[in-house]
Amino acid sequence: MSARPEQQAEDLREAMLVIGSKARVAARELALADTAAKNAALCAMAAHLRSDKAAILKANAADVEAAKRNGLATSFIDRLTLDETRIEAMARGLEEIADLPDPVGAVLSEWTRPNGLRIARVRVPIGVIGIIYESRPNVTADAGGLCLKAGNAAILRTGSDAFQSARAIHAALAAGLTAAGLPANAIQLVPTTDRRAVGHLLAGLEGAVDVIVPRGGRSLVERVQSEARVPVFAHLEGICHTYVDKAADLEMAQRIVVNAKMRRTGICGATECLLVDKAASDDVMHALVKALLDAGCEVRGDAAAQAVDERVKPAAPNDYGKEFLDSIIAVKSVGGVDGAIDHIARFGSQHTDAIVTSDEKAAERFLKRVDSAIVLHNASTQFADGGEFGFGAEIGIATGKMHARGPVGVEQLTSFKYIVRGVGQTRPG
Amino acid sequence: MSARPEQQAEDLREAMLVIGSKARVAARELALADTAAKNAALCAMAAHLRSDKAAILKANAADVEAAKRNGLATSFIDRLTLDETRIEAMARGLEEIADLPDPVGAVLSEWTRPNGLRIARVRVPIGVIGIIYESRPNVTADAGGLCLKAGNAAILRTGSDAFQSARAIHAALAAGLTAAGLPANAIQLVPTTDRRAVGHLLAGLEGAVDVIVPRGGRSLVERVQSEARVPVFAHLEGICHTYVDKAADLEMAQRIVVNAKMRRTGICGATECLLVDKAASDDVMHALVKALLDAGCEVRGDAAAQAVDERVKPAAPNDYGKEFLDSIIAVKSVGGVDGAIDHIARFGSQHTDAIVTSDEKAAERFLKRVDSAIVLHNASTQFADGGEFGFGAEIGIATGKMHARGPVGVEQLTSFKYIVRGVGQTRPG
Repeated sequence: MSARPEQQAEDLREAMLVIGSKARVAARELALADTAAKNAALCAMAAHLRSDKAAILKANAADVEAAKRNGLATSFIDRLTLDETRIEAMARGLEEIADLPDPVGAVLSEWTRPNGLRIARVRVPIGVIGIIYESRPNVTADAGGLCLKAGNAAILRTGSDAFQSARAIHAALAAGLTAAGLPANAIQLVPTTDRRAVGHLLAGLEGAVDVIVPRGGRSLVERVQSEARVPVFAHLEGICHTYVDKAADLEMAQRIVVNAKMRRTGICGATECLLVDKAASDDVMHALVKALLDAGCEVRGDAAAQAVDERVKPAAPNDYGKEFLDSIIAVKSVGGVDGAIDHIARFGSQHTDAIVTSDEKAAERFLKRVDSAIVLHNASTQFADGGEFGFGAEIGIATGKMHARGPVGVEQLTSFKYIVRGVGQTRPG
Repeated sequence: MSARPEQQAEDLREAMLVIGSKARVAARELALADTAAKNAALCAMAAHLRSDKAAILKANAADVEAAKRNGLATSFIDRLTLDETRIEAMARGLEEIADLPDPVGAVLSEWTRPNGLRIARVRVPIGVIGIIYESRPNVTADAGGLCLKAGNAAILRTGSDAFQSARAIHAALAAGLTAAGLPANAIQLVPTTDRRAVGHLLAGLEGAVDVIVPRGGRSLVERVQSEARVPVFAHLEGICHTYVDKAADLEMAQRIVVNAKMRRTGICGATECLLVDKAASDDVMHALVKALLDAGCEVRGDAAAQAVDERVKPAAPNDYGKEFLDSIIAVKSVGGVDGAIDHIARFGSQHTDAIVTSDEKAAERFLKRVDSAIVLHNASTQFADGGEFGFGAEIGIATGKMHARGPVGVEQLTSFKYIVRGVGQTRPG
């Protein structure tokens, strides 16, 4: 006795709006929760993850079995699979969020006007944050915990392949919230795998959602960015460059380039393209390409790079501006720092780019002119990370220029308001 | 020999995309312009406004004549009409923007990581800003000047009734830019009154536009907020409240309330609703209502307010939450600071709200719990203004919680990036 499709669509729409208004109510309460209550909830959530371990592993096993039955890729199943170590890591992650300073209420700046008015710019929560993710079960705990610490209500939408796992993890989070006397609706999980629910979330649930954070691959982020009617904290790709200037210390350049490409190749801060100053001696290109090849990296280069070693493949035009997320790098020689800046403006994704040089003037020119969320001098692009920035955990990295840019941690999940203190000032006509 | 409608639509679309890509190119150049060049352009723009006075007044006269012919309201024609004083005010406004500190390059915060990495958060321009406004010709100069100072390219879209005036003013701005060696495309005026151009701008011109600022009445802002595919700095309404607590100094409360309502009734920071503590003596309601009536304000109140004077009209339910923008105020007695907070949560617009009290605890409770861009203690809501905040000029006031909230001045027209300085750090596995 299934309902008519139109009725089902209407029921879903209404169910999503109810989630939105519950989140809005919880957000108002959470905005005023004190630090101790939020930290108690985070620790209780961690405790519940540990005590609910058996239930979480059982739910996860069902997801994994279905994924195998559906013939999903091994790498996908690896990301999906939980074990005791991964559950413990989630629990510890929540405890680490509890250890971070509370951003809410922090005074960002303060000044006094000639008429005596004292004005302060103070951090407040954003409100309601929608998080849309794929198959990593840990995002349920990480994202829920970060939103909570920043005083925001979260609406979590997991990929259908991880739905059972997310539900079990979410139950532990909700129990932790209740134990600490905070509203269980502070972290809600969309209770259906119906894909249309994502559309409702992206439309903002009639004003209930303040910002959307997509966590996942390019196709997810693309859909979110094109459909969302509310602000989005996201980056589409991390096409990161490392430019080695003629004035670089060669040993440092080698270390940085190999680390920037090879430490982990699947993260958004991995360097995808090495730019080498044409004015540097041939030794520089030689040493860098050899170091990459020796580290097991496939090198696709221009004529200068190919001259180094026969293992270097010719770069196709679309290898520049490509996010390999693999042990592959594009290499190109460019006309100095300006050549690098132009190449990055054309092929980069405004995420993270680095210069290696001992020439301070060249470095400042690069740092000023490259319009990316993160620009580095003499360091690896793999530092593009909330933890490495000292933000504690992060919910993602944003390349947009509004409000959050770079790693998005608890602080970036807040807004601010102005508090003005007077002694009776009225404004002259 | 007019083209087919589809062809016209396609031509307009292409013309708008060309404007977008010209703005993008100008923005890249402007982002690197030094302070002296930007200030020289602002001063040259002011000089050209003065020397082009005759042409501007002539163009404006044509607009005013057409507006009269079309039977537009007197208040509309007043806002549209320029004279020598108003042109001089525009020119001086640009010179005042030149006097403001340059926000670009300012270091917002700086810290050093345990591994020695030095990270700085530095202001950069946003990029391309679209401004959609109505009939006030001065917005052309003000908005163009503010965007320029913050290193942003501006695309201006004026209402059709002010098109000739805007074109003449824009010519002076473009001449000033050229005189200072900056790209004339840094400030572009959409060269058509075709309403479909607004739709293209709101769609973001294929990624060329970073943010939209609407300047105008509720219907304009509503359209922009519902159609824009890029972030919007705006507020829909300023439904500002002043709450007078039982612990208020009565003389101070009277001065503040009359100023907050009556100093100028047409601005978004004007108080629209007075809330009076039920626990205050009857004298308080009496004194406040009398003061408003004596100042020429129409008072629409609940039973307690009506008891003061027979001139008080009964408030209709929808008088609460209404933006009168006129010499009319809604008055209500509420149950203390929590009653005021609840009323504001229900009827406010998250713009600006004030408490008058000598009780510091009540004040802190109000300042913390009222979720508006600006909350004031013992001061008039009419201070909700970029100039009064010390921001110099402002392009508007934003109630959104992303990035810009409250008065939007040059500083709020910028974004930031992270600059990381190392000595060869690579990230450990």
